[in-house]
Amino acid sequence: MSTRPKSFQVTLADIQEARKNLSVHLPDSPLLFNPWLSDQYQCEIYLKLENMQPIGSFKIRGATNKILRLSREERNKGVICASAGNHAQGVAWGSRLLKTDALIVMPRGASLTKIANTKSLGAKVQLEGANYDEAFEAAQAICKKTGRVYVHAYEDPDVIAGQGTVALEILDQLPGVGCVIGSMGGGGLMSGVSVAFRELKPKTLLIGCQAAGAPSMVQSIQKGRAISLPMVKTFADGIAVARASEVMRRILSPRLDAVYEATDEEISAAVLTLIEKAKTLSEGSGAVPLAILDKIRKKISGKKVVLIISGGNIDVNILARIIDRGLTRAGRRLRLNVLLSDAPGSLFRLTEIIAHEGGNILQAIHDRNEPSTMIDQTDIALTLETRGPDHSDAIIEALKQQVYRVEVLR
Amino acid sequence: MSTRPKSFQVTLADIQEARKNLSVHLPDSPLLFNPWLSDQYQCEIYLKLENMQPIGSFKIRGATNKILRLSREERNKGVICASAGNHAQGVAWGSRLLKTDALIVMPRGASLTKIANTKSLGAKVQLEGANYDEAFEAAQAICKKTGRVYVHAYEDPDVIAGQGTVALEILDQLPGVGCVIGSMGGGGLMSGVSVAFRELKPKTLLIGCQAAGAPSMVQSIQKGRAISLPMVKTFADGIAVARASEVMRRILSPRLDAVYEATDEEISAAVLTLIEKAKTLSEGSGAVPLAILDKIRKKISGKKVVLIISGGNIDVNILARIIDRGLTRAGRRLRLNVLLSDAPGSLFRLTEIIAHEGGNILQAIHDRNEPSTMIDQTDIALTLETRGPDHSDAIIEALKQQVYRVEVLR
Repeated sequence: MSTRPKSFQVTLADIQEARKNLSVHLPDSPLLFNPWLSDQYQCEIYLKLENMQPIGSFKIRGATNKILRLSREERNKGVICASAGNHAQGVAWGSRLLKTDALIVMPRGASLTKIANTKSLGAKVQLEGANYDEAFEAAQAICKKTGRVYVHAYEDPDVIAGQGTVALEILDQLPGVGCVIGSMGGGGLMSGVSVAFRELKPKTLLIGCQAAGAPSMVQSIQKGRAISLPMVKTFADGIAVARASEVMRRILSPRLDAVYEATDEEISAAVLTLIEKAKTLSEGSGAVPLAILDKIRKKISGKKVVLIISGGNIDVNILARIIDRGLTRAGRRLRLNVLLSDAPGSLFRLTEIIAHEGGNILQAIHDRNEPSTMIDQTDIALTLETRGPDHSDAIIEALKQQVYRVEVLR
Repeated sequence: MSTRPKSFQVTLADIQEARKNLSVHLPDSPLLFNPWLSDQYQCEIYLKLENMQPIGSFKIRGATNKILRLSREERNKGVICASAGNHAQGVAWGSRLLKTDALIVMPRGASLTKIANTKSLGAKVQLEGANYDEAFEAAQAICKKTGRVYVHAYEDPDVIAGQGTVALEILDQLPGVGCVIGSMGGGGLMSGVSVAFRELKPKTLLIGCQAAGAPSMVQSIQKGRAISLPMVKTFADGIAVARASEVMRRILSPRLDAVYEATDEEISAAVLTLIEKAKTLSEGSGAVPLAILDKIRKKISGKKVVLIISGGNIDVNILARIIDRGLTRAGRRLRLNVLLSDAPGSLFRLTEIIAHEGGNILQAIHDRNEPSTMIDQTDIALTLETRGPDHSDAIIEALKQQVYRVEVLR
């Protein structure tokens, strides 16, 4: 593809200049110590809250820096990008700030929320293609025809320099930082961060991570060449990149100490932990650094560890499912099938036991016509809210003592 | 009650000294500009994130300041308090910091999570009484017997001075602040805040707010004397105080410009807005300042407005219900009853239409034995995930065009 660069350099000076320019428009994002996580992992854990940026993700940094560095003539031509998510909002935000016309090409399946958010920042939105790759091709064609400046989500030195400003803020906020962990989609964030750290505090442990359902950069770094995955499958849509970039691999590979993957189950548990223990909303990609911590307990012990919570743009429908599954996993939602004798009062006696044990019935499906049970028996499917695994066990035990046949559904 | 003071004074100097002492142990909490809310209310809205405190609420300030100001002799006697929630964790945190023995009396119904959190901070927990009032009486009795120092949740000048440090931080972080809104339970937070503001920036608009299900201080201020409510009913448990304190009313009444109430429905919508638009988790009491904003649109127009998000300790089970109800209210969860002809393939055709319209079926309850319908008809109860009200309307319309009888459940 003509607009894909063969290689480029990003220097500390670029990042420092980006910070000088960006700081006029964006205050530093908060870096907060988290006592609960620190206790769990026997180290000092700090959260760099990029989800608190005006557009809810770090992408505001790179896109705005890119547009800031355009000449007046270039800005007059307008900018264009393809994105289904956070980069779109970053480009729209930066363009509005600098009174630049922005055209965002989004795939036709893009969420209405994200389309609306991008439009509300003043950008034009054009729907093209069935997926990101097709939208990208369409955007490239429009770019050539219109002369607009293309703002790539990561393969651009100005974009990477913008993302690298996260590192300079961390170094100001926590000079003793010993480890930084961030997720990778295309790799823009960790490229900028690692360039800055290797210059300013080279011994910092730098760890990149991806969703196990889309490990294109992790595998590229392991294999020593950029690879393409036949498919990606993760709810962490912010980092679901199938085709790794060789340019990005060459920046990342020599600078990162290690790379790790987390499963969607681990990522979703991390999203829930951030809500409960840090009171902060992370999207899937933003929670991956926390999701891999169990794998590096020994490496981080005693260190000052920064987790970059890269974004918070998660659909609340998905959030509701994460909470629901998390509560089930944590033993705080109990799903049971109970066999009852089909006689008057049997449901009353069952609910009496549950009420006595302090369980809260969220759902009860009682179907006397279920054909798989005996003629004089009936089945009831219960979903209960409990205080935890011990409480769940106590309820199950109480039911069994009353000679109910209980099947626990997971 | 012997330990209830008749009156006391809190001065700006007390609050300034509290800040000097607390700042050694607690960094300033973040104050973040929120572009989305600012746009909605045509002013500059900032969130003071007390939910990001180590214990998840502002109560850490007052309790720690109180314990910091005890003499060595007093600290050796240990401290005691009654609380079912955030104050318990504040006292436990401050006691651990200052190596003081802490006994927290909690009502027997207190949530296991809150008991566990308090214990994990090293405090002793004793369960007494069926509710807060009974726990309070028990704690008073133990206090007299043991000589421990009682740490009241708000009726104490050192506690109020600690809470007032929020105001000094706001003035540092946003010198041009024009309005501050905070919720009131006992009134400790807004007492401290209003004392500081009336000295340092007297023309600031100061607004106190409560849940409509527990408006003890709002009514006390309106009536000019402390009142007791026969009952309180709100999910905002952090501010569910039935008996207002006259001492607190005398501090608040001359200093607040206005007081407002919000219903539980309004508060729960505000919790969801804070999650979606500010990526931050608030408990009910912390979201009341946002919940009353519609009532004061004109007053705040053009101003720099600070909402104190006082805490984030909300049970995720309750959060899940708030999300569920919020999505239904916003037209993003659609509950329908559809009448089908009881013939093979009719459910298939129904689901085909929904799939074609892009609706996602979350739950379908199809019961052919439902007796209220005609013999050749059957009922299906559907819960769908949609993209919003327009999308929901489109799905309903498509079903009606295929001559389904559709009943929308609210």
